[in-house]
Amino acid sequence: MTAEWLELPADTPFGVDNLPFGVFSTDDEAPRVGVAVGERVLDLAPLAAGEGLDGAHVFESPSLNDFLALGRPSWVAVRAWLIELLTHPGSADVVEPHLVDRSAARLHLPVEVGDYVDFYASEHHATNVGRIFRPDAAPLTPNWRHLPIGYHGRSGTLVISGTDIVRPMGQRRLADSPEPVFGPSTRLDIEAEVAYIVGVPTDLGQRVSVDDFADHVFGVCLLNDWSARDIQAWEYVPLGPFLGKSFGTSLSPWVVPLAALDSARVALPGQDPEPLPYLRGSTPEAAFGLDLQLEVRINGTLVARPPYATTYWSPAQMLAHLTVNGASLRTGDIFASGTVSGSEPGQRGSLLELTWNGTEPLTLADGTERGFLRDGDEVSISAWAPTADGGRLGFGTVSGRVVAAR
Amino acid sequence: MTAEWLELPADTPFGVDNLPFGVFSTDDEAPRVGVAVGERVLDLAPLAAGEGLDGAHVFESPSLNDFLALGRPSWVAVRAWLIELLTHPGSADVVEPHLVDRSAARLHLPVEVGDYVDFYASEHHATNVGRIFRPDAAPLTPNWRHLPIGYHGRSGTLVISGTDIVRPMGQRRLADSPEPVFGPSTRLDIEAEVAYIVGVPTDLGQRVSVDDFADHVFGVCLLNDWSARDIQAWEYVPLGPFLGKSFGTSLSPWVVPLAALDSARVALPGQDPEPLPYLRGSTPEAAFGLDLQLEVRINGTLVARPPYATTYWSPAQMLAHLTVNGASLRTGDIFASGTVSGSEPGQRGSLLELTWNGTEPLTLADGTERGFLRDGDEVSISAWAPTADGGRLGFGTVSGRVVAAR
Repeated sequence: MTAEWLELPADTPFGVDNLPFGVFSTDDEAPRVGVAVGERVLDLAPLAAGEGLDGAHVFESPSLNDFLALGRPSWVAVRAWLIELLTHPGSADVVEPHLVDRSAARLHLPVEVGDYVDFYASEHHATNVGRIFRPDAAPLTPNWRHLPIGYHGRSGTLVISGTDIVRPMGQRRLADSPEPVFGPSTRLDIEAEVAYIVGVPTDLGQRVSVDDFADHVFGVCLLNDWSARDIQAWEYVPLGPFLGKSFGTSLSPWVVPLAALDSARVALPGQDPEPLPYLRGSTPEAAFGLDLQLEVRINGTLVARPPYATTYWSPAQMLAHLTVNGASLRTGDIFASGTVSGSEPGQRGSLLELTWNGTEPLTLADGTERGFLRDGDEVSISAWAPTADGGRLGFGTVSGRVVAAR
Repeated sequence: MTAEWLELPADTPFGVDNLPFGVFSTDDEAPRVGVAVGERVLDLAPLAAGEGLDGAHVFESPSLNDFLALGRPSWVAVRAWLIELLTHPGSADVVEPHLVDRSAARLHLPVEVGDYVDFYASEHHATNVGRIFRPDAAPLTPNWRHLPIGYHGRSGTLVISGTDIVRPMGQRRLADSPEPVFGPSTRLDIEAEVAYIVGVPTDLGQRVSVDDFADHVFGVCLLNDWSARDIQAWEYVPLGPFLGKSFGTSLSPWVVPLAALDSARVALPGQDPEPLPYLRGSTPEAAFGLDLQLEVRINGTLVARPPYATTYWSPAQMLAHLTVNGASLRTGDIFASGTVSGSEPGQRGSLLELTWNGTEPLTLADGTERGFLRDGDEVSISAWAPTADGGRLGFGTVSGRVVAAR
């Protein structure tokens, strides 16, 4: 489904069945809304204005928030308009002038972030972490299968893919001492996650049912929840992660619309016990999973292929839980899955798990070993999803390089 | 220190040595910046414009953010200008037209909130909670005296004083069952807290030293961190509080400038062990406490008088800790003390502690008993601080009424 004139390579992550939204700037123009098409970015504001599209001014904004706040009917209409334009043989003259080479486009955070919530939705991940951090207890806490555990992260330190990550300083406790020491983290880690971008807000006191998920969530990104395991281990009892996470969280630039992921919807791997009614939809399909295949690379070496389809809690269940107490949503809120890990060792989305807390180091292509990250390491996470025609669409990557502590 | 023409009552919380900033609207004008003066609100934008004050337009904004972002030199200059105007016998003609009766002013959230962090800085509170929730363990976790424990709360559900609080629904576990039940919280509680409003932002990777606190923090509010203890107890292991807190957090409307609290600065009650160097200032005075006397009322009955001066961790230490890993600040970030509790039973800032988890109910003036809050209960928290002339200044109140679950 494309027009010949676009000359998209067959393996592009950003074909016409994807059309992810982002924010870009060029040397001569401020940040504005764009859509990734192959290796180019479609500059929506002038195209939409020229074509007389209703509400075209929302694309002049330096974030997607104005567009997202318009709601699902507008998302559907704009997507249909774009697909029509891009697949029409005669629209080259109209579209071509607004296609910017990716090399000339600087990408920015796609949304002005409201609250950022991180969940803990992968059973394999939670089980691995429990075994590593609490070896004398049951790996899953008693609440784990009853609710999607989540917590609030720092929204002000969400950064766009490509931003350097400064190794954090902090307190950690060495094994042989009851007193903490202070210095750069020595156990800097990643968490490969799937993030959901909220478009339509709610009022305080209102809940979002599992069925209404797609009326509020516009699309999906990739997220790397950089984690300093030594800082985290010392600080997190009893109120949860804080400085071990808040020094930086990287987000991929392109928001893949939920509407592009119909063919990626899969049943959850199974929930036992049956969740409480507020965590169920009117049909089992409402609490869908997504067949996203993640790939984690360190300095180019593929170190893990976490399968998101193995995740226990559905995105719609996470949102229903987040709002069941009446907590309101804002346009630009982000909630993420937590680390995606599958059942196999090569499917784990964190070094904590991949190297079993550093005891089983990985070997990279250059022959060097990694327990945790070294300064200079570049981590990139990408993902693919199936399309209706048996192909696949891509999420692009979220990447970041570790730089030395200051 | 005032002008006769202002006719301020001697016991006003908002005398000329206070001058707290807030945001108000009237029937005929949109939200804008005001300063509380006695029982009236000074409409700053037209006064500042009329007087030719530099940057007067920042007061036309519907939040304090633009003013706060100007930084400490501007805060100092505006305060000096206001004091000069309000204490000058001849300025009645200039000022009087811009004084709005409080009864005609609707108050709004004073800032557009960035991130909201809640600490756990009171040793008496943390000890009480530890005894109640973890009776078989040491009441303080091993990290407690080494760092100010904190976590991120939901900034999107911070609400202005006076907003109704809907009793949250959620999962809780009954004592005789391993399975959770779902329904309205039956252990709805308050937390009386002191909140700090960040004015000057930092870059990612930058730290704020204890000495530099007052260059970044503009002022102080009161905060009620409503807490559903039953939801919290079931959800909070291992990642901390989430839905037990995120349904609503109330903020007082008036931000008392740090500059008004010089006479309230006191030494901390004592820290053992000595904190790590990043938690110390160049002088002991840099990590100051504040002699704020809080008062908690339920339906008008005074139920507690928490003395903030007993708090273990200083606000400057909390900020130094929050940023030691390089986490950046934004204008409008808020961080709070956690529940303020003193050593005496009548000084505890939560019902959890005041009623020892509901086992020792309070009796209100109307003869009814409270373990936790009932629908219809109105909670108000106020505070006072000493002034240079031996008087006191007030913070006003943060209040909220509990309404039935939906």
